[in-house]
Amino acid sequence: MRILILGGDGYLGWPTAMRFSARGHEVYVVDNFSRRRWHHEQSTDSLIPIRPLAERIEAWHDVSGRDIIPFVGNIEDGEFVERVVADTLPEAVVHYGEQPSAPFSMISRRHAVETQYTNVIGNLNLLFAMRDHVPSAHLVKLGTMGEYGTPNIDIEEGFIEIHHKGRSDTLPFPKLPGSLYHLSKVHDSHNIHFACRIWGLRATDLNQGLVYGIETDETTMDERLMTRFDYDEIFGTVLNRFCVQAVIGHPLTVYGKGGQTRGCLNIRDTLQCVELAVNNPAELGEFRVFNQFTEQFSVAEFAELVKEAGAELGREVEIQSFPNPRIEAEEHYYNATNTKLRDLGLEPHYLGAELVQSMLNTIERYKDRVILRAIAPRTQWKPGEIEVRNPVGA
Amino acid sequence: MRILILGGDGYLGWPTAMRFSARGHEVYVVDNFSRRRWHHEQSTDSLIPIRPLAERIEAWHDVSGRDIIPFVGNIEDGEFVERVVADTLPEAVVHYGEQPSAPFSMISRRHAVETQYTNVIGNLNLLFAMRDHVPSAHLVKLGTMGEYGTPNIDIEEGFIEIHHKGRSDTLPFPKLPGSLYHLSKVHDSHNIHFACRIWGLRATDLNQGLVYGIETDETTMDERLMTRFDYDEIFGTVLNRFCVQAVIGHPLTVYGKGGQTRGCLNIRDTLQCVELAVNNPAELGEFRVFNQFTEQFSVAEFAELVKEAGAELGREVEIQSFPNPRIEAEEHYYNATNTKLRDLGLEPHYLGAELVQSMLNTIERYKDRVILRAIAPRTQWKPGEIEVRNPVGA
Repeated sequence: MRILILGGDGYLGWPTAMRFSARGHEVYVVDNFSRRRWHHEQSTDSLIPIRPLAERIEAWHDVSGRDIIPFVGNIEDGEFVERVVADTLPEAVVHYGEQPSAPFSMISRRHAVETQYTNVIGNLNLLFAMRDHVPSAHLVKLGTMGEYGTPNIDIEEGFIEIHHKGRSDTLPFPKLPGSLYHLSKVHDSHNIHFACRIWGLRATDLNQGLVYGIETDETTMDERLMTRFDYDEIFGTVLNRFCVQAVIGHPLTVYGKGGQTRGCLNIRDTLQCVELAVNNPAELGEFRVFNQFTEQFSVAEFAELVKEAGAELGREVEIQSFPNPRIEAEEHYYNATNTKLRDLGLEPHYLGAELVQSMLNTIERYKDRVILRAIAPRTQWKPGEIEVRNPVGA
Repeated sequence: MRILILGGDGYLGWPTAMRFSARGHEVYVVDNFSRRRWHHEQSTDSLIPIRPLAERIEAWHDVSGRDIIPFVGNIEDGEFVERVVADTLPEAVVHYGEQPSAPFSMISRRHAVETQYTNVIGNLNLLFAMRDHVPSAHLVKLGTMGEYGTPNIDIEEGFIEIHHKGRSDTLPFPKLPGSLYHLSKVHDSHNIHFACRIWGLRATDLNQGLVYGIETDETTMDERLMTRFDYDEIFGTVLNRFCVQAVIGHPLTVYGKGGQTRGCLNIRDTLQCVELAVNNPAELGEFRVFNQFTEQFSVAEFAELVKEAGAELGREVEIQSFPNPRIEAEEHYYNATNTKLRDLGLEPHYLGAELVQSMLNTIERYKDRVILRAIAPRTQWKPGEIEVRNPVGA
């Protein structure tokens, strides 16, 4: 199958590209290295040293004998996207090519605008290119569980049957996103749904939970194939961040009481889910939504897990409550459905002490690279609301 | 009160500016004349000849002795918006400053991107400027009834109480917008809701129906004060378009069976609604949604109304079914709630033969300006789907 991966240089995009290549597919990747650029702007970096895309692709060829074809450019440029789609005629498009950080989108007006511009306009350009060149290709789009927020009812997979005043209809699940980044994904979902309804495209929106983990089957084949690992307050997801904090002896930065409950999954399961979606495409005209996570944890539970795993390795890990920089309910009802990917055969890698210990050991090898200044939360959801603390060690 | 009106040179924005000025408010208007530019690009024009903004403002001063202060610039430029808000410190902001046409948004990728960019980024810039300079000002934003689409349940005003698996919550009403323009308004609504939830701004989202009519109390005071009147397939709303067609002897272009039912209102009532919203602001932190229409009609009923009004004036009006260029249900359930503005005191001008005849008589005075080529629908929602007909007389 010809598979085009947008954001193919990223944390998830690069391992996904290798996975499909390893399976014998023709893989094309698009990236403009914006994640690398954003790290430069924040003076932060991946904990794991990563190679330039061209070097990764050479290494992959050395290791596997297979080729991955890169296209470097901005998806905000509609003509670029159109040219890539017309040249590669993909049967599936996996779209990771977006600004993926909630705190980034809340730093300033410029960051908010960049986030919504990159994500919404890039995705819109892709929809037009697919309509005009590969109308029966399958779009697999990465969304986020954060689109739903924390409603007081069970979260369904994209749609909900509503009974109202004696009538009923199945309608898009209402969204209460918690950042301008999460909003950009809500906008994308609405635009993609429209493209399916009106143009007859087919799409799967993967509303992904928090991803943790460092390694996949392919990244461990050669040091040059490793994927990035972010732990800073902007791009690091919570469990990855806690593991780095544990290794360097920084208190785990739990926001408020840590009662925020979220779905999460192992990076290995992200690859499994995307592969299941690609191998079992939506019908023409169908907009399908899968909630992509394997377990639910509260932030306090993540912290306890890291603390316990650390203790077994002889590390003393402190948990510290930070004023929550986000505006969100710290205790709330949360119960999200996630049966559709399991019905397709997903076999989860559950989170346990063993996995956390393996992450701690890998991080230990790179701990000299940790930039302390980048760890404590500084981006406020509501400027002026909360006193900004100096990060420990800064 | 200091009132800032974005899109103050437009069909509704200009009469709104005069209305608030007549009431003694300090009125500031922002426009970049994009509607005039888009007409140039389509080789179309307002039926009513309109004056440049500076001349309108002079004429208004001549007639009323009052000043309206203009700012010329693009709201996509965040620094411009910030400067205007910081300079004027408005207590209310009325935001009409968006690309308002569904067919325009469907012409091509470029038009779709321009629509979502102008509307979503412009509105986002405004939210940041209000957060940083006038956090307690009241945003009155023009949305559209088209955000809801045509669900099989009653449409509520912005929110709906959902009972699901033994729990319940009041959540944003699900949206099924029918064009990339309507989608941009859905995106705006989500962004504004967020700004109210997270930053504590206050806003009223006016989900407006189809507006018809030519005159308001102020536009009739002097010929130089008249507002634009669009009848072309891109910018003309259905009743306005039908009236022009009736006057020039063009068949009324009903799409398909004409069973599409929509809410509508007189331009005089738009002004009444906006004034009611401004005079009765939302609470701090409140995102309030009003459905702004006074009556529901099907497209076929609009056509019959114009045909009958024409007959009484001795005109023979033909109704012709055109292949529907839009992808939409031609017969569907439709029942939308609209009590909140009435509760605030809205007294509707209902649509009747007298109003239609008055419109026909006004249009008669300008009928030499009609550009025939611009009338028949050419923009296809799904390119290649429907044979494009030549417009009559072209």
